[in-house]
Amino acid sequence: MEKFIIIGERIHCIAPAIREAMANRDPEPILQRAKEQLDAGATYLDLNIGPAEKDGEDLMAWGVKLLQENFDNVPLALDTANKKAIEAGIKVYNRAKGKPIVNSADAGDRISNIDLAAANDAIIIALCSKQGVPKDNDERMQYCQEMLERGLELGMEAEDLWFDPLTLVIKGMQEKQVEFLEFIRQLRDMGLNSTAGLSNASNGMPKEVRPIVDSVLTAMAIECGLTSAILNPCEKRLMDTIKTTAVILNRTLYADAYLDI
Amino acid sequence: MEKFIIIGERIHCIAPAIREAMANRDPEPILQRAKEQLDAGATYLDLNIGPAEKDGEDLMAWGVKLLQENFDNVPLALDTANKKAIEAGIKVYNRAKGKPIVNSADAGDRISNIDLAAANDAIIIALCSKQGVPKDNDERMQYCQEMLERGLELGMEAEDLWFDPLTLVIKGMQEKQVEFLEFIRQLRDMGLNSTAGLSNASNGMPKEVRPIVDSVLTAMAIECGLTSAILNPCEKRLMDTIKTTAVILNRTLYADAYLDI
Repeated sequence: MEKFIIIGERIHCIAPAIREAMANRDPEPILQRAKEQLDAGATYLDLNIGPAEKDGEDLMAWGVKLLQENFDNVPLALDTANKKAIEAGIKVYNRAKGKPIVNSADAGDRISNIDLAAANDAIIIALCSKQGVPKDNDERMQYCQEMLERGLELGMEAEDLWFDPLTLVIKGMQEKQVEFLEFIRQLRDMGLNSTAGLSNASNGMPKEVRPIVDSVLTAMAIECGLTSAILNPCEKRLMDTIKTTAVILNRTLYADAYLDI
Repeated sequence: MEKFIIIGERIHCIAPAIREAMANRDPEPILQRAKEQLDAGATYLDLNIGPAEKDGEDLMAWGVKLLQENFDNVPLALDTANKKAIEAGIKVYNRAKGKPIVNSADAGDRISNIDLAAANDAIIIALCSKQGVPKDNDERMQYCQEMLERGLELGMEAEDLWFDPLTLVIKGMQEKQVEFLEFIRQLRDMGLNSTAGLSNASNGMPKEVRPIVDSVLTAMAIECGLTSAILNPCEKRLMDTIKTTAVILNRTLYADAYLDI
Protein backbone atom coordinates (compact mmCIF):
# COMPACT_ATOMS: atom_id res chain seq x y z
CA MET A 1 0.00 0.00 0.00
CA GLU A 2 1.12 3.48 -0.74
CA LYS A 3 1.91 6.28 1.62
CA PHE A 4 -0.83 8.76 2.50
CA ILE A 5 0.23 12.07 0.98
CA ILE A 6 0.08 15.21 3.07
CA ILE A 7 -0.14 18.55 1.30
CA GLY A 8 0.79 21.26 3.80
CA GLU A 9 -1.73 24.10 3.67
CA ARG A 10 0.02 26.81 5.64
CA ILE A 11 1.60 28.90 2.87
CA HIS A 12 -1.61 30.71 2.15
CA CYS A 13 -2.03 34.38 1.33
CA ILE A 14 -5.01 34.59 3.65
CA ALA A 15 -2.54 34.58 6.56
CA PRO A 16 -1.49 38.22 7.06
CA ALA A 17 2.19 37.37 7.54
CA ILE A 18 2.26 35.37 4.32
CA ARG A 19 0.29 37.95 2.36
CA GLU A 20 2.78 40.60 3.36
CA ALA A 21 5.76 38.37 2.63
CA MET A 22 4.35 37.64 -0.82
CA ALA A 23 3.70 41.32 -1.53
CA ASN A 24 7.25 42.27 -0.50
CA ARG A 25 8.92 39.14 -1.90
CA ASP A 26 10.26 38.58 1.60
CA PRO A 27 11.51 34.98 1.78
CA GLU A 28 11.78 34.46 5.53
CA PRO A 29 8.16 34.03 6.68
CA ILE A 30 7.48 31.71 3.76
CA LEU A 31 10.61 29.64 4.28
CA GLN A 32 9.83 29.33 7.97
CA ARG A 33 6.36 27.93 7.37
CA ALA A 34 7.74 25.63 4.71
CA LYS A 35 10.35 24.25 7.08
CA GLU A 36 7.85 23.75 9.89
CA GLN A 37 5.53 21.81 7.62
CA LEU A 38 8.27 19.67 6.09
CA ASP A 39 9.72 18.92 9.52
CA ALA A 40 6.24 17.88 10.66
CA GLY A 41 5.82 15.41 7.80
CA ALA A 42 4.36 17.19 4.77
CA THR A 43 5.22 15.68 1.39
CA TYR A 44 3.81 18.45 -0.80
CA LEU A 45 3.50 22.13 0.08
CA ASP A 46 0.53 24.12 -1.15
CA LEU A 47 1.54 27.55 -2.44
CA ASN A 48 -1.64 29.61 -2.36
CA ILE A 49 -1.22 33.07 -3.79
CA GLY A 50 -4.93 33.88 -3.91
CA PRO A 51 -6.56 35.41 -7.01
CA ALA A 52 -3.28 37.24 -7.78
CA GLU A 53 -4.73 39.06 -10.72
CA LYS A 54 -2.03 41.68 -10.94
CA ASP A 55 1.37 40.07 -10.58
CA GLY A 56 0.44 36.40 -10.22
CA GLU A 57 2.89 35.13 -12.81
CA ASP A 58 5.86 36.79 -11.24
CA LEU A 59 4.75 35.90 -7.72
CA MET A 60 4.13 32.22 -8.44
CA ALA A 61 7.43 31.82 -10.28
CA TRP A 62 9.20 33.53 -7.39
CA GLY A 63 7.50 31.31 -4.82
CA VAL A 64 8.19 28.09 -6.70
CA LYS A 65 11.86 28.89 -7.11
CA LEU A 66 12.18 30.07 -3.52
CA LEU A 67 10.71 26.87 -2.06
CA GLN A 68 12.36 24.42 -4.40
CA GLU A 69 15.80 26.02 -4.15
CA ASN A 70 15.70 26.04 -0.36
CA PHE A 71 14.09 22.64 0.19
CA ASP A 72 15.67 20.27 -2.28
CA ASN A 73 13.04 20.59 -4.99
CA VAL A 74 10.12 19.98 -2.63
CA PRO A 75 7.04 19.11 -4.70
CA LEU A 76 4.38 21.82 -4.74
CA ALA A 77 0.68 22.38 -5.28
CA LEU A 78 0.18 25.62 -7.23
CA ASP A 79 -2.93 27.17 -5.85
CA THR A 80 -4.58 30.18 -7.50
CA ALA A 81 -7.47 31.07 -9.77
CA ASN A 82 -4.97 32.76 -12.08
CA LYS A 83 -4.12 30.25 -14.81
CA LYS A 84 -1.25 32.21 -16.23
CA ALA A 85 0.29 32.21 -12.77
CA ILE A 86 0.04 28.43 -12.62
CA GLU A 87 1.69 28.17 -16.01
CA ALA A 88 4.43 30.55 -14.94
CA GLY A 89 4.98 28.43 -11.83
CA ILE A 90 5.17 25.20 -13.80
CA LYS A 91 7.65 26.78 -16.20
CA VAL A 92 10.25 27.10 -13.43
CA TYR A 93 9.16 23.97 -11.51
CA ASN A 94 11.67 21.15 -10.98
CA ARG A 95 10.06 17.69 -11.16
CA ALA A 96 12.86 15.78 -9.45
CA LYS A 97 10.69 15.05 -6.38
CA GLY A 98 7.28 14.82 -8.04
CA LYS A 99 4.96 16.42 -10.57
CA PRO A 100 3.38 19.78 -9.76
CA ILE A 101 -0.22 19.73 -8.56
CA VAL A 102 -2.67 22.20 -10.09
CA ASN A 103 -5.09 23.29 -7.36
CA SER A 104 -7.81 23.03 -8.60
CA ALA A 105 -10.43 22.15 -11.22
CA ASP A 106 -14.13 21.48 -10.80
CA ALA A 107 -16.83 20.29 -13.19
CA GLY A 108 -18.05 23.85 -13.76
CA ASP A 109 -16.26 27.10 -14.47
CA ARG A 110 -12.89 25.71 -13.55
CA ILE A 111 -12.97 22.57 -15.69
CA SER A 112 -10.39 23.93 -18.11
CA ASN A 113 -7.78 23.62 -15.37
CA ILE A 114 -7.81 19.93 -16.33
CA ASP A 115 -6.65 20.97 -19.78
CA LEU A 116 -3.94 23.05 -18.18
CA ALA A 117 -2.77 20.10 -16.09
CA ALA A 118 -2.89 17.77 -19.11
CA ALA A 119 -0.88 20.19 -21.25
CA ASN A 120 1.76 20.46 -18.55
CA ASP A 121 1.96 16.85 -17.34
CA ALA A 122 0.73 17.95 -13.91
CA ILE A 123 -1.50 16.40 -11.28
CA ILE A 124 -4.92 18.03 -10.96
CA ILE A 125 -7.09 18.30 -7.87
CA ALA A 126 -10.57 17.72 -9.27
CA LEU A 127 -13.38 18.96 -7.05
CA CYS A 128 -16.50 16.86 -7.57
CA SER A 129 -18.82 19.85 -7.71
CA LYS A 130 -20.16 22.25 -10.31
CA GLN A 131 -22.14 24.98 -8.63
CA GLY A 132 -22.26 24.83 -4.87
CA VAL A 133 -22.73 21.62 -2.92
CA PRO A 134 -23.54 18.44 -4.88
CA LYS A 135 -26.91 17.18 -3.69
CA ASP A 136 -25.83 13.54 -3.42
CA ASN A 137 -23.15 11.06 -4.41
CA ASP A 138 -24.76 10.38 -7.79
CA GLU A 139 -24.15 14.01 -8.62
CA ARG A 140 -20.60 13.81 -7.27
CA MET A 141 -19.96 10.71 -9.37
CA GLN A 142 -21.32 12.37 -12.48
CA TYR A 143 -18.83 15.23 -12.07
CA CYS A 144 -16.05 12.78 -11.28
CA GLN A 145 -16.77 10.89 -14.51
CA GLU A 146 -16.93 14.09 -16.57
CA MET A 147 -13.57 15.23 -15.27
CA LEU A 148 -11.99 11.79 -15.54
CA GLU A 149 -13.10 11.45 -19.17
CA ARG A 150 -11.83 14.89 -20.01
CA GLY A 151 -8.46 14.16 -18.44
CA LEU A 152 -8.11 10.79 -20.16
CA GLU A 153 -9.10 12.23 -23.54
CA LEU A 154 -6.36 14.79 -23.11
CA GLY A 155 -3.82 12.04 -22.46
CA MET A 156 -3.61 12.20 -18.65
CA GLU A 157 -3.07 9.11 -16.53
CA ALA A 158 -6.05 8.42 -14.26
CA GLU A 159 -3.73 8.46 -11.26
CA ASP A 160 -2.95 12.12 -11.91
CA LEU A 161 -6.52 13.17 -11.24
CA TRP A 162 -6.98 13.48 -7.47
CA PHE A 163 -10.69 13.67 -6.84
CA ASP A 164 -11.94 15.81 -3.98
CA PRO A 165 -15.44 14.87 -2.75
CA LEU A 166 -15.80 18.40 -1.34
CA THR A 167 -15.57 18.44 2.43
CA LEU A 168 -18.68 19.95 3.99
CA VAL A 169 -19.04 21.84 7.25
CA ILE A 170 -20.44 19.64 10.03
CA LYS A 171 -22.14 22.63 11.64
CA GLY A 172 -24.93 22.98 9.14
CA MET A 173 -24.39 19.87 7.04
CA GLN A 174 -23.90 17.18 9.64
CA GLU A 175 -26.06 14.69 7.79
CA LYS A 176 -23.81 14.93 4.70
CA GLN A 177 -20.67 13.50 6.31
CA VAL A 178 -21.68 9.86 5.83
CA GLU A 179 -22.04 10.51 2.11
CA PHE A 180 -18.65 12.19 2.03
CA LEU A 181 -17.02 9.08 3.52
CA GLU A 182 -19.02 6.77 1.28
CA PHE A 183 -17.84 8.70 -1.78
CA ILE A 184 -14.22 8.21 -0.76
CA ARG A 185 -14.92 4.47 -0.63
CA GLN A 186 -16.41 4.63 -4.11
CA LEU A 187 -13.30 6.38 -5.42
CA ARG A 188 -11.11 3.75 -3.78
CA ASP A 189 -13.18 0.94 -5.28
CA MET A 190 -12.68 2.52 -8.69
CA GLY A 191 -8.93 2.65 -8.08
CA LEU A 192 -8.88 6.44 -8.19
CA ASN A 193 -6.80 8.80 -6.11
CA SER A 194 -8.54 11.19 -3.77
CA THR A 195 -7.84 14.26 -1.70
CA ALA A 196 -9.76 16.54 0.63
CA GLY A 197 -9.49 19.71 2.63
CA LEU A 198 -10.55 17.82 5.71
CA SER A 199 -10.35 20.66 8.21
CA ASN A 200 -13.24 22.38 6.45
CA ALA A 201 -15.50 19.94 8.26
CA SER A 202 -14.74 21.49 11.64
CA ASN A 203 -15.14 25.10 10.55
CA GLY A 204 -16.90 27.18 13.15
CA MET A 205 -16.32 24.74 15.99
CA PRO A 206 -14.59 25.76 19.24
CA LYS A 207 -10.84 25.82 18.75
CA GLU A 208 -10.19 23.04 21.27
CA VAL A 209 -12.68 20.78 19.49
CA ARG A 210 -11.38 21.24 15.95
CA PRO A 211 -8.24 19.06 16.22
CA ILE A 212 -10.34 16.27 17.69
CA VAL A 213 -12.90 16.39 14.90
CA ASP A 214 -10.20 16.77 12.26
CA SER A 215 -8.31 13.78 13.63
CA VAL A 216 -11.29 11.46 13.87
CA LEU A 217 -12.59 12.40 10.43
CA THR A 218 -9.11 11.87 9.01
CA ALA A 219 -8.81 8.40 10.56
CA MET A 220 -12.22 7.46 9.18
CA ALA A 221 -11.46 8.91 5.74
CA ILE A 222 -8.14 7.07 5.54
CA GLU A 223 -9.92 3.86 6.51
CA CYS A 224 -12.30 4.55 3.59
CA GLY A 225 -9.33 4.84 1.26
CA LEU A 226 -8.49 8.53 1.09
CA THR A 227 -5.05 8.79 -0.54
CA SER A 228 -4.09 12.38 0.29
CA ALA A 229 -5.28 15.50 2.07
CA ILE A 230 -4.59 19.19 2.28
CA LEU A 231 -4.06 19.95 5.93
CA ASN A 232 -1.96 21.56 8.62
CA PRO A 233 0.84 19.10 9.42
CA CYS A 234 1.87 21.22 12.41
CA GLU A 235 -1.28 20.08 14.22
CA LYS A 236 0.22 17.32 16.37
CA ARG A 237 -2.96 15.40 17.13
CA LEU A 238 -3.72 15.20 13.43
CA MET A 239 -0.24 14.01 12.50
CA ASP A 240 -0.21 11.48 15.34
CA THR A 241 -3.46 10.16 13.92
CA ILE A 242 -2.12 9.89 10.39
CA LYS A 243 1.06 8.16 11.56
CA THR A 244 -1.05 5.74 13.57
CA THR A 245 -3.26 4.85 10.60
CA ALA A 246 -0.05 4.03 8.72
CA VAL A 247 0.95 1.61 11.49
CA ILE A 248 -2.51 0.01 11.66
CA LEU A 249 -2.67 -0.34 7.88
CA ASN A 250 0.85 -1.81 7.91
CA ARG A 251 2.26 0.91 5.66
CA THR A 252 5.05 1.82 8.07
CA LEU A 253 6.72 -0.54 10.49
CA TYR A 254 5.75 -0.05 14.13
CA ALA A 255 8.42 1.15 16.54
CA ASP A 256 7.77 2.43 20.06
CA ALA A 257 8.99 5.86 18.91
CA TYR A 258 6.96 5.91 15.69
CA LEU A 259 5.19 9.16 16.63
CA ASP A 260 8.51 10.98 16.87
CA ILE A 261 9.81 9.79 13.52
CA MET B 1 -28.36 4.29 12.75
CA GLU B 2 -27.94 2.82 16.15
CA LYS B 3 -25.81 3.98 19.00
CA PHE B 4 -22.34 2.48 19.41
CA ILE B 5 -22.46 0.43 22.59
CA ILE B 6 -19.69 0.81 25.13
CA ILE B 7 -19.09 -2.03 27.56
CA GLY B 8 -17.01 -0.67 30.44
CA GLU B 9 -14.14 -3.04 31.21
CA ARG B 10 -12.89 -1.74 34.55
CA ILE B 11 -14.66 -4.05 36.99
CA HIS B 12 -12.14 -6.78 36.48
CA CYS B 13 -10.73 -9.08 39.13
CA ILE B 14 -7.26 -8.69 37.67
CA ALA B 15 -7.15 -5.22 39.28
CA PRO B 16 -5.92 -5.78 42.86
CA ALA B 17 -8.44 -3.37 44.39
CA ILE B 18 -11.31 -5.14 42.66
CA ARG B 19 -10.03 -8.61 43.44
CA GLU B 20 -9.90 -7.72 47.10
CA ALA B 21 -13.30 -6.08 47.05
CA MET B 22 -14.77 -9.17 45.42
CA ALA B 23 -13.13 -11.48 47.94
CA ASN B 24 -14.43 -9.41 50.86
CA ARG B 25 -17.78 -8.54 49.28
CA ASP B 26 -16.80 -4.92 49.83
CA PRO B 27 -19.15 -2.79 47.71
CA GLU B 28 -17.32 0.52 47.68
CA PRO B 29 -14.42 -0.04 45.24
CA ILE B 30 -16.78 -1.76 42.80
CA LEU B 31 -19.46 0.90 43.03
CA GLN B 32 -16.87 3.60 42.54
CA ARG B 33 -15.56 2.08 39.32
CA ALA B 34 -19.10 1.50 38.15
CA LYS B 35 -20.02 5.12 38.73
CA GLU B 36 -16.91 6.42 37.00
CA GLN B 37 -17.61 4.33 33.94
CA LEU B 38 -21.30 5.20 33.74
CA ASP B 39 -20.54 8.89 34.20
CA ALA B 40 -18.03 8.63 31.37
CA GLY B 41 -20.57 7.12 29.00
CA ALA B 42 -20.61 3.32 29.37
CA THR B 43 -23.88 1.62 28.47
CA TYR B 44 -23.03 -1.86 29.73
CA LEU B 45 -20.63 -2.76 32.53
CA ASP B 46 -18.51 -5.87 32.30
CA LEU B 47 -18.41 -7.79 35.56
CA ASN B 48 -15.33 -9.96 35.31
CA ILE B 49 -14.91 -12.29 38.27
CA GLY B 50 -12.15 -14.40 36.70
CA PRO B 51 -12.27 -18.22 36.78
CA ALA B 52 -14.09 -18.06 40.14
CA GLU B 53 -14.07 -21.79 40.55
CA LYS B 54 -14.79 -21.77 44.25
CA ASP B 55 -17.55 -19.31 45.04
CA GLY B 56 -18.38 -18.00 41.55
CA GLU B 57 -22.13 -18.44 41.85
CA ASP B 58 -22.41 -16.50 45.05
CA LEU B 59 -19.96 -13.83 43.87
CA MET B 60 -21.64 -13.23 40.52
CA ALA B 61 -25.12 -13.03 42.05
CA TRP B 62 -23.79 -10.62 44.66
CA GLY B 63 -22.11 -8.46 42.00
CA VAL B 64 -25.13 -8.36 39.71
CA LYS B 65 -27.46 -7.33 42.52
CA LEU B 66 -24.98 -4.80 43.86
CA LEU B 67 -24.57 -3.03 40.52
CA GLN B 68 -28.16 -3.19 39.39
CA GLU B 69 -29.58 -2.04 42.72
CA ASN B 70 -27.23 0.92 42.89
CA PHE B 71 -27.37 1.98 39.25
CA ASP B 72 -30.95 1.67 38.14
CA ASN B 73 -30.70 -1.84 36.69
CA VAL B 74 -27.62 -1.05 34.60
CA PRO B 75 -27.21 -3.77 31.95
CA LEU B 76 -24.26 -6.07 32.53
CA ALA B 77 -21.88 -8.40 30.76
CA LEU B 78 -21.26 -11.46 32.94
CA ASP B 79 -17.66 -12.39 32.40
CA THR B 80 -16.20 -15.65 33.73
CA ALA B 81 -15.25 -19.12 32.59
CA ASN B 82 -17.55 -20.51 35.32
CA LYS B 83 -20.88 -21.30 33.65
CA LYS B 84 -22.74 -21.90 36.85
CA ALA B 85 -21.69 -18.46 37.98
CA ILE B 86 -23.14 -16.94 34.80
CA GLU B 87 -26.39 -18.80 35.36
CA ALA B 88 -26.48 -17.64 38.98
CA GLY B 89 -25.94 -14.06 37.78
CA ILE B 90 -28.69 -14.27 35.19
CA LYS B 91 -31.06 -15.67 37.80
CA VAL B 92 -30.98 -12.42 39.77
CA TYR B 93 -30.52 -10.14 36.71
CA ASN B 94 -33.13 -7.47 35.97
CA ARG B 95 -33.72 -6.98 32.23
CA ALA B 96 -35.41 -3.59 32.44
CA LYS B 97 -32.47 -1.84 30.75
CA GLY B 98 -31.29 -4.63 28.47
CA LYS B 99 -30.55 -8.32 28.21
CA PRO B 100 -27.53 -9.71 30.01
CA ILE B 101 -24.44 -10.39 27.89
CA VAL B 102 -22.62 -13.68 28.32
CA ASN B 103 -18.89 -13.06 27.92
CA SER B 104 -17.95 -15.19 26.02
CA ALA B 105 -18.19 -18.11 23.60
CA ASP B 106 -15.78 -19.18 20.87
CA ALA B 107 -15.96 -21.85 18.18
CA GLY B 108 -13.90 -24.27 20.29
CA ASP B 109 -14.05 -25.32 23.92
CA ARG B 110 -16.37 -22.49 24.86
CA ILE B 111 -19.00 -23.00 22.15
CA SER B 112 -21.56 -24.30 24.66
CA ASN B 113 -21.78 -20.81 26.12
CA ILE B 114 -23.98 -20.13 23.08
CA ASP B 115 -26.36 -22.76 24.42
CA LEU B 116 -26.25 -21.09 27.80
CA ALA B 117 -27.11 -17.72 26.27
CA ALA B 118 -29.88 -19.25 24.14
CA ALA B 119 -31.41 -21.00 27.15
CA ASN B 120 -31.42 -17.74 29.09
CA ASP B 121 -32.44 -15.26 26.38
CA ALA B 122 -29.09 -13.52 26.73
CA ILE B 123 -26.71 -11.82 24.32
CA ILE B 124 -23.53 -13.77 23.60
CA ILE B 125 -20.12 -12.40 22.71
CA ALA B 126 -18.92 -14.87 20.09
CA LEU B 127 -15.16 -14.86 19.54
CA CYS B 128 -14.34 -15.86 15.97
CA SER B 129 -11.54 -18.21 16.97
CA LYS B 130 -11.14 -21.83 17.93
CA GLN B 131 -7.59 -22.48 19.04
CA GLY B 132 -5.33 -19.47 19.06
CA VAL B 133 -5.29 -16.85 16.33
CA PRO B 134 -7.34 -17.52 13.19
CA LYS B 135 -4.98 -17.61 10.23
CA ASP B 136 -7.17 -15.46 7.97
CA ASN B 137 -10.66 -14.07 7.53
CA ASP B 138 -11.90 -17.22 5.83
CA GLU B 139 -11.18 -19.05 9.05
CA ARG B 140 -12.83 -16.27 11.08
CA MET B 141 -15.89 -16.44 8.85
CA GLN B 142 -16.11 -20.20 9.20
CA TYR B 143 -16.22 -19.86 12.99
CA CYS B 144 -18.70 -17.01 12.74
CA GLN B 145 -21.00 -19.17 10.61
CA GLU B 146 -20.69 -22.14 12.95
CA MET B 147 -21.63 -20.04 15.96
CA LEU B 148 -24.39 -18.19 14.12
CA GLU B 149 -25.98 -21.44 12.98
CA ARG B 150 -25.78 -22.91 16.44
CA GLY B 151 -27.41 -19.84 17.96
CA LEU B 152 -30.18 -19.71 15.36
CA GLU B 153 -30.90 -23.43 15.72
CA LEU B 154 -31.33 -22.85 19.44
CA GLY B 155 -33.83 -20.09 18.78
CA MET B 156 -31.64 -17.02 19.26
CA GLU B 157 -32.11 -13.86 17.23
CA ALA B 158 -29.07 -13.13 15.04
CA GLU B 159 -28.81 -9.69 16.63
CA ASP B 160 -28.07 -11.30 19.99
CA LEU B 161 -24.81 -12.79 18.73
CA TRP B 162 -22.11 -10.12 18.93
CA PHE B 163 -19.18 -11.39 16.91
CA ASP B 164 -15.69 -10.52 18.04
CA PRO B 165 -13.06 -10.75 15.29
CA LEU B 166 -10.37 -11.18 17.98
CA THR B 167 -8.24 -8.08 18.36
CA LEU B 168 -4.56 -8.85 17.80
CA VAL B 169 -1.53 -7.15 19.27
CA ILE B 170 0.06 -4.68 16.85
CA LYS B 171 3.49 -5.34 18.29
CA GLY B 172 4.02 -8.75 16.78
CA MET B 173 1.00 -8.97 14.49
CA GLN B 174 1.03 -5.60 12.80
CA GLU B 175 0.22 -7.07 9.41
CA LYS B 176 -3.01 -8.62 10.77
CA GLN B 177 -4.77 -5.34 11.58
CA VAL B 178 -6.04 -4.75 8.05
CA GLU B 179 -7.73 -8.16 8.14
CA PHE B 180 -9.26 -7.33 11.50
CA LEU B 181 -10.85 -4.18 10.07
CA GLU B 182 -11.90 -5.97 6.90
CA PHE B 183 -13.65 -8.63 8.96
CA ILE B 184 -15.66 -5.98 10.80
CA ARG B 185 -16.79 -4.71 7.39
CA GLN B 186 -17.81 -8.24 6.43
CA LEU B 187 -19.89 -8.57 9.61
CA ARG B 188 -21.53 -5.21 8.90
CA ASP B 189 -22.32 -6.24 5.33
CA MET B 190 -23.98 -9.37 6.70
CA GLY B 191 -26.05 -7.23 9.05
CA LEU B 192 -24.44 -8.78 12.12
CA ASN B 193 -23.52 -7.11 15.37
CA SER B 194 -19.90 -6.99 16.40
CA THR B 195 -17.73 -6.22 19.38
CA ALA B 196 -14.04 -6.13 20.20
CA GLY B 197 -11.57 -5.67 23.02
CA LEU B 198 -9.88 -2.94 21.04
CA SER B 199 -7.25 -1.98 23.58
CA ASN B 200 -5.59 -5.38 23.13
CA ALA B 201 -4.12 -3.99 19.93
CA SER B 202 -1.90 -1.55 21.81
CA ASN B 203 -0.66 -4.04 24.40
CA GLY B 204 3.02 -3.58 25.17
CA MET B 205 3.23 -0.08 23.72
CA PRO B 206 4.50 2.90 25.76
CA LYS B 207 1.73 4.17 28.02
CA GLU B 208 1.56 7.58 26.33
CA VAL B 209 1.13 5.92 22.93
CA ARG B 210 -1.65 3.51 23.87
CA PRO B 211 -4.56 6.00 24.01
CA ILE B 212 -3.54 7.33 20.61
CA VAL B 213 -3.47 3.90 19.02
CA ASP B 214 -6.67 2.85 20.78
CA SER B 215 -8.46 5.98 19.60
CA VAL B 216 -7.38 5.75 15.98
CA LEU B 217 -8.16 2.04 15.77
CA THR B 218 -11.55 2.68 17.34
CA ALA B 219 -12.39 5.44 14.84
CA MET B 220 -11.38 3.16 11.97
CA ALA B 221 -13.28 0.17 13.37
CA ILE B 222 -16.44 2.25 13.87
CA GLU B 223 -16.14 3.49 10.30
CA CYS B 224 -15.98 -0.19 9.27
CA GLY B 225 -19.21 -0.83 11.12
CA LEU B 226 -18.22 -2.04 14.57
CA THR B 227 -21.34 -1.88 16.73
CA SER B 228 -19.87 -2.19 20.24
CA ALA B 229 -16.61 -2.54 22.12
CA ILE B 230 -15.28 -3.51 25.50
CA LEU B 231 -13.10 -0.66 26.62
CA ASN B 232 -12.15 1.80 29.32
CA PRO B 233 -14.64 4.68 29.07
CA CYS B 234 -12.57 6.69 31.56
CA GLU B 235 -9.91 7.16 28.88
CA LYS B 236 -10.85 10.65 27.70
CA ARG B 237 -9.17 10.56 24.30
CA LEU B 238 -10.97 7.35 23.46
CA MET B 239 -14.36 8.65 24.54
CA ASP B 240 -13.84 11.93 22.70
CA THR B 241 -13.12 9.84 19.62
CA ILE B 242 -16.24 7.73 20.01
CA LYS B 243 -18.44 10.80 20.59
CA THR B 244 -16.93 12.41 17.51
CA THR B 245 -17.65 9.38 15.31
CA ALA B 246 -21.26 9.65 16.47
CA VAL B 247 -21.36 13.27 15.28
CA ILE B 248 -19.70 12.47 11.95
CA LEU B 249 -22.01 9.52 11.36
CA ASN B 250 -24.99 11.71 12.29
CA ARG B 251 -26.03 9.48 15.18
CA THR B 252 -26.03 12.31 17.70
CA LEU B 253 -26.75 15.93 16.97
CA TYR B 254 -23.72 18.20 16.98
CA ALA B 255 -23.50 20.88 19.68
CA ASP B 256 -20.38 22.89 20.51
CA ALA B 257 -20.32 21.17 23.91
CA TYR B 258 -20.88 17.65 22.56
CA LEU B 259 -17.69 16.32 24.14
CA ASP B 260 -18.92 17.28 27.59
CA ILE B 261 -22.32 15.66 27.24
